[in-house]
Amino acid sequence: MPAKETPLGKLISFEGAEGSGKSTQIARLAKRLAKHKHDVLSVREPGGTEIGEQVRNIIVHNSSGDEMCAETELLLFAAARAQLVREVIAPALLKGTIVLSDRFMDSSTVYQGIARNLAADPVSMINTFAVGEVMPALTVVLDVPPSVSKKRIRQRASDVPDRMERENIDFFTKVRNGYLLLAKSLPDRIVVIKGTLSELEIEREIWKVVKKTIA
Amino acid sequence: MPAKETPLGKLISFEGAEGSGKSTQIARLAKRLAKHKHDVLSVREPGGTEIGEQVRNIIVHNSSGDEMCAETELLLFAAARAQLVREVIAPALLKGTIVLSDRFMDSSTVYQGIARNLAADPVSMINTFAVGEVMPALTVVLDVPPSVSKKRIRQRASDVPDRMERENIDFFTKVRNGYLLLAKSLPDRIVVIKGTLSELEIEREIWKVVKKTIA
Repeated sequence: MPAKETPLGKLISFEGAEGSGKSTQIARLAKRLAKHKHDVLSVREPGGTEIGEQVRNIIVHNSSGDEMCAETELLLFAAARAQLVREVIAPALLKGTIVLSDRFMDSSTVYQGIARNLAADPVSMINTFAVGEVMPALTVVLDVPPSVSKKRIRQRASDVPDRMERENIDFFTKVRNGYLLLAKSLPDRIVVIKGTLSELEIEREIWKVVKKTIA
Repeated sequence: MPAKETPLGKLISFEGAEGSGKSTQIARLAKRLAKHKHDVLSVREPGGTEIGEQVRNIIVHNSSGDEMCAETELLLFAAARAQLVREVIAPALLKGTIVLSDRFMDSSTVYQGIARNLAADPVSMINTFAVGEVMPALTVVLDVPPSVSKKRIRQRASDVPDRMERENIDFFTKVRNGYLLLAKSLPDRIVVIKGTLSELEIEREIWKVVKKTIA
């Protein structure tokens, strides 16, 4: 049997509620990594491939959004992720690229599993099936109180809030607690950083843990 | 705890390769059932809901069809099925309707599992997750040799063959053998009928088993 191929790059995923500052910090980290001569690729979930963007479109802007059941939502996210992993992330890791992902498998655990009450076992199994052997080396959770999350969403320029953004404070509270719980159970992979710090402070905190991961 | 609701209707699924005559026979059976004063609803997979038809569109007509990986395909079919079951099939069964489905969970077992070589365990688990407790009372497999299947597809009026229809004879052989294997392992639910008989003969064979199922 041939030896298993070892990915040379690293996958770093960013998690947190909407409005927690993930995109801002991914952009800052990408810049910093590039300055340090690393190959960097930023992807977002769901999406990042032609098929994945089509799936994203169904999830985010479905006109009959309230009728989408939690099981469907989970399977659609997993489908987009399965494609992203095999078409984009795995090949990039093999080339030594550092891949920054705006959301990854933990989003399914927290949003569909914990916040929408799907059973943990099938959610975990479907997550594993979707990602295969591509696991994040590091996951950064940006933690903000639900009220901050809601406020930031309202301030965004885009006109119409999407499906997820229309959820109420209870939902955002479940999401936040879900991430904190998950981080406690996987302390070797998941780092929680206060999303209410200044952008620069958060960038510095992230850089501290990323440096160790890519060392 | 309240007693579990017993579905009053029955779900009958139709399976077989492309060009095996499923749609023709579903139409004939629906007519016959209606004549016998049954409420009938015909659905197709993937599709049958607004969300499911959007998913169908991604699967069937994806311009980058060759790049869709087997895992993505399985998860997309499962997503469309999860929505169809909860939005359409389960409510219809509760009203006593006989639901005829053009493909159901066995398609995933055979197409993505057996023909595309995905591991049986996750395929089975994802199938179960998608359908919940809604299982077919009867499954009719229309069995045709791959050459007949290919020939009938070519004769169809539609101009461009879709993703599945472009597959080669080997693929259709795997699909056929997969269905026969599955039918052997689940003889109480799955009935195999020769799809090379005349339409009327097939209709009569189907009616024999359906009568017993809905009695």
